[in-house]
Amino acid sequence: MSRERQISVPNPIDLTAMNLPEDLASLTIPQCKLLCEAIRKLLIDTVMQTGGHLSSNLGVVELTLALHRNFHSPDDRIVWDVGHQAYVHKILTGRLDAFHTLRQENGLAGFPKPTESPHDTFITGHSSTAVSAACGIADAMRIRKNPHYAIAVVGDGASTGGMFYEGLNNGGKTRNNLIVILNDNNWGISKNVGAIAKYLANIRNSGDYVRTKWAVEQTLNIIPKVGKPIAGMLKRTKDRLKKNLIGSTLFDQLGFVYLGPIDGHDVEALDEVLDAAKQYHCPVLVHVHTIKGKGYAPAEQNPGEYHGVPRIDVESKNPEISTDECYSTVFGKELAAIAAKDKSVCAVTAAMKYGTALQFFAAEHPNRFFDVGIAEQHAVTFCAGMASMGMKPVFAVYSTFLQRGYDQIIHDVAIAKHHVVFAIDRAGIVGEDGETHQGIFDVSMLAAIPHMKVYSPAGYDELRLCLHAALHQDKGPVAVRYPRGQEPPSAAELPVDLRFSHIPGKQMLIITYGRISANALTAKKQLQAQGIDCGLLKLTTIVPLDAELLTIAMQYPNIAFFEESDELGGIGEQFAALLLEAGYHGNYFHNAIHGFVRQASVNRIFEKLGLTADAMVQTIREKLV
Amino acid sequence: MSRERQISVPNPIDLTAMNLPEDLASLTIPQCKLLCEAIRKLLIDTVMQTGGHLSSNLGVVELTLALHRNFHSPDDRIVWDVGHQAYVHKILTGRLDAFHTLRQENGLAGFPKPTESPHDTFITGHSSTAVSAACGIADAMRIRKNPHYAIAVVGDGASTGGMFYEGLNNGGKTRNNLIVILNDNNWGISKNVGAIAKYLANIRNSGDYVRTKWAVEQTLNIIPKVGKPIAGMLKRTKDRLKKNLIGSTLFDQLGFVYLGPIDGHDVEALDEVLDAAKQYHCPVLVHVHTIKGKGYAPAEQNPGEYHGVPRIDVESKNPEISTDECYSTVFGKELAAIAAKDKSVCAVTAAMKYGTALQFFAAEHPNRFFDVGIAEQHAVTFCAGMASMGMKPVFAVYSTFLQRGYDQIIHDVAIAKHHVVFAIDRAGIVGEDGETHQGIFDVSMLAAIPHMKVYSPAGYDELRLCLHAALHQDKGPVAVRYPRGQEPPSAAELPVDLRFSHIPGKQMLIITYGRISANALTAKKQLQAQGIDCGLLKLTTIVPLDAELLTIAMQYPNIAFFEESDELGGIGEQFAALLLEAGYHGNYFHNAIHGFVRQASVNRIFEKLGLTADAMVQTIREKLV
Repeated sequence: MSRERQISVPNPIDLTAMNLPEDLASLTIPQCKLLCEAIRKLLIDTVMQTGGHLSSNLGVVELTLALHRNFHSPDDRIVWDVGHQAYVHKILTGRLDAFHTLRQENGLAGFPKPTESPHDTFITGHSSTAVSAACGIADAMRIRKNPHYAIAVVGDGASTGGMFYEGLNNGGKTRNNLIVILNDNNWGISKNVGAIAKYLANIRNSGDYVRTKWAVEQTLNIIPKVGKPIAGMLKRTKDRLKKNLIGSTLFDQLGFVYLGPIDGHDVEALDEVLDAAKQYHCPVLVHVHTIKGKGYAPAEQNPGEYHGVPRIDVESKNPEISTDECYSTVFGKELAAIAAKDKSVCAVTAAMKYGTALQFFAAEHPNRFFDVGIAEQHAVTFCAGMASMGMKPVFAVYSTFLQRGYDQIIHDVAIAKHHVVFAIDRAGIVGEDGETHQGIFDVSMLAAIPHMKVYSPAGYDELRLCLHAALHQDKGPVAVRYPRGQEPPSAAELPVDLRFSHIPGKQMLIITYGRISANALTAKKQLQAQGIDCGLLKLTTIVPLDAELLTIAMQYPNIAFFEESDELGGIGEQFAALLLEAGYHGNYFHNAIHGFVRQASVNRIFEKLGLTADAMVQTIREKLV
Repeated sequence: MSRERQISVPNPIDLTAMNLPEDLASLTIPQCKLLCEAIRKLLIDTVMQTGGHLSSNLGVVELTLALHRNFHSPDDRIVWDVGHQAYVHKILTGRLDAFHTLRQENGLAGFPKPTESPHDTFITGHSSTAVSAACGIADAMRIRKNPHYAIAVVGDGASTGGMFYEGLNNGGKTRNNLIVILNDNNWGISKNVGAIAKYLANIRNSGDYVRTKWAVEQTLNIIPKVGKPIAGMLKRTKDRLKKNLIGSTLFDQLGFVYLGPIDGHDVEALDEVLDAAKQYHCPVLVHVHTIKGKGYAPAEQNPGEYHGVPRIDVESKNPEISTDECYSTVFGKELAAIAAKDKSVCAVTAAMKYGTALQFFAAEHPNRFFDVGIAEQHAVTFCAGMASMGMKPVFAVYSTFLQRGYDQIIHDVAIAKHHVVFAIDRAGIVGEDGETHQGIFDVSMLAAIPHMKVYSPAGYDELRLCLHAALHQDKGPVAVRYPRGQEPPSAAELPVDLRFSHIPGKQMLIITYGRISANALTAKKQLQAQGIDCGLLKLTTIVPLDAELLTIAMQYPNIAFFEESDELGGIGEQFAALLLEAGYHGNYFHNAIHGFVRQASVNRIFEKLGLTADAMVQTIREKLV
């Protein structure tokens, strides 16, 4: 981007008057600073209302601005890894007016969504995918002789995931227009204590890594086709960059030109490094050092507390971390208590210590607590390795992220019947995070795996019961799955049992499991009041299915199965097959989740899916007509 | 291991007279050489009969011997990554007598199997898991104050997998007795052209990487607790090791002490480096350079051809690569032909170019062919990235390895409905490779994912038809799955259709799909000859299920569904649920695969599973009584 193209622009604080993102390239540096201030204010005001990821977005205000100044989105294609830091990108690419609808039903998504804007090039939500996606985009550009750039913006936390490495290993062997921005903030580092984290911290903090020649110059020697004009251009910007550029070897070795570390809050420095990165026409990794929460007053006034995860996340209304009693904390406290008596119990998380409420365990049993970074594959096989030595590992993981460990559950845990406990948090509908984060596949995933046992408790007491059984009764792979948030108020009225509970009735049997059992009980009562006598069969052990369940169900002329999970491959389908093979000739109705589930509140989604008590009542009445 | 403990031993060539593995430590170096010769002869003689992985085992004869000389298995726990190179380990740990039963029904497994021997510490088969498993073992040892070692033996090919990196990143942050042996041979390198492969080749081949001080000395400076005695010991072996040790940085940066490269066919050098590795009591990576097929006469006489994959694999009876016509080659040739006309078609493999028969595509369209290494996660998302740019990527992958991409299919392909084609080879029973390699989960895996379409053609013609449809009719994610080997002789008699084929009958409807459709047709004919009139419903599109199928099936009083796939979450279960909800009141019987399937020939496994024509006839006759 040329510094000479500076033209008169509207007051940059008035975002609404700008033509975005085109006008950004014409702003002066002082105007950029004003714009960043305005964006920060908008972020804070909005996210405090809508919830969402505030700190990570405050950290990338300048970086996002610089990206849109130096690249031509969507011809140049920016892929935001994890995606929750794309709010600024949304603001700068035509979604300012809708920004107040963030994460609401029918509003802006909290993650990049191509159906929302052509500037959102690729759906993200799970970690460490962006380099691989950008590799595909860059190769497509090469084949099609498209001269534009594929840019992956990846946080340091995501650099602990194996996919990041697979992407670099494959990207690094090409000569494509592939640029990886490593957005390195202290946050990911403090959470993901691993070798790569230490390595990045070393680069940032140690003068020992400074080379006598800066990285761009050095790389010129190994790229013969970069000719004199570019070398000249590079030399001109050299002096300004030199002080910030420190050589690395890890990324060099993976085939990338390494540029960095760069102050991620200095738009001028970012302009220069991005402009330099564009000149290589080969894979470049730009290491940008940002401060999470930058410009957020509580953080600036009290940086010590700012680094404490629970405080800042409560303040930022991060819905991922709850300090109130909820399924997660019931699990976390109970596991810590169990581990005090049973010294073989270990706890493993993939960078979700607070999200899975393992902070209680970590505080009491630091010797047996493991945060492996965003590396679910490793976590599962690591647990299998511990189990092979007689330990009792518990992998606490969100349902949607356990998908990353599917092969490892089959191959490393189930074949050998290792006693690994999966504590599956966020199982079921999670709400505002939308399609990428709903926990609707763990049941079909695990139900198909031989030797698995799966519990789906309805409330806190049952969760505790299942956890004890999983650790002290069961022998092989076993999962306890429970939803995000708090148990329904009526959960306390439900019977508690490790296998199942049957409240007999006559006309119709309602079968369900997990959190919506409370809705089913309410529905049963409402129907009773309307003169319809329904039985309720609440499953706790959902895999494998108990033979006795079939005997119970066969006695009813009508069966309705409600499931807060994917319909295909789910328990309702399996139950139906067993009924049919057993010769059941009654009426069977199955209501589960069909397809991906868009963002909205959990209750609103339940309404749409027909899983509220009222909806169950209505469905059953219709089926009985 | 002390050199002084040399005692008189039986003639080391007579393996049967040795107490294994205990006697190994007492052998002199000349005796070791004789032993290695004897083992090579046994390997060649046996594997030429049984089939299996010859070259990789010939490459690790000295390494395996050295491991068992210097460690005390099974107290020290050796995890063999991928596992197909563990034959020598089996010979040296009490399974010499049974070695001729390798890969046969009820015989020795071709992979490590803890139920077979305590020396097989962990089941392996899929790639890149060993470091994670060893991390778990090492942490369990630390917690339990067990002073032994966890050793992961990993090939260079496996180093392209993200799990390897996740394992190193987590292992490298500990102070555990964790030793990673990187078994680096030219084979993996030539196949996995990636940045890490180039990097390893550089270490091996370039004098530029030699440091002035050897790695052990350097590392002493950063491990304060390693005191004088160990330093003295290290110094004594320094001179002999010095010439072989070249410093690295990549593994240092990930927290490992790097020792290497070592000549993997020099038992003395291996003894010394392993002894050194044991002294650190912190993570050590030993880089061993071996030659695949070492000692195999055809390879030694003609090293050029030895490096050509098809030749050596035919010669070594590697069952993974077929040059005869088979499902794989039919796919590979057809895709190459399609791509000649459609320039948007790209082909992707995860280190299985020959196994998936993509060599035809690679030769004709090198610009659009991608071997990403053993990195299925990356492969899937890379395809999604290409698809987002309008290309038509085809990921050819074995069913069992696609399990690694489960999350990426959901998250990166299905939500956005990217048009990615999955060519799923080895779908169904693969035979002698056993539990870790059977392709029995892809159907349940994909059936549960919204927006997926899955074809399961019965023979070659239908495979071609499905491939064309997948590329030119379908729009979203679509899979074509087909088995290992050749179509059944009677496949030519089957009708060919993209949706389904119905041959009407009266008493019983046989439903099935894929390769066993031929068995079903034979069964139908046999039953006809016995006066039993069965219809046959052969599905080609198995996901989603066609509504018309239900209409057809409802007309029959009896239905038998045969499925060469996992029962739970499979198509038969789904079909049953649809039938029950539609009010079907006939008899339904479902025969699919329940549990993991042990090694045997495909036909023998079909017999045991009841999926042969004869078994189908018998089952149907029983059900009709």
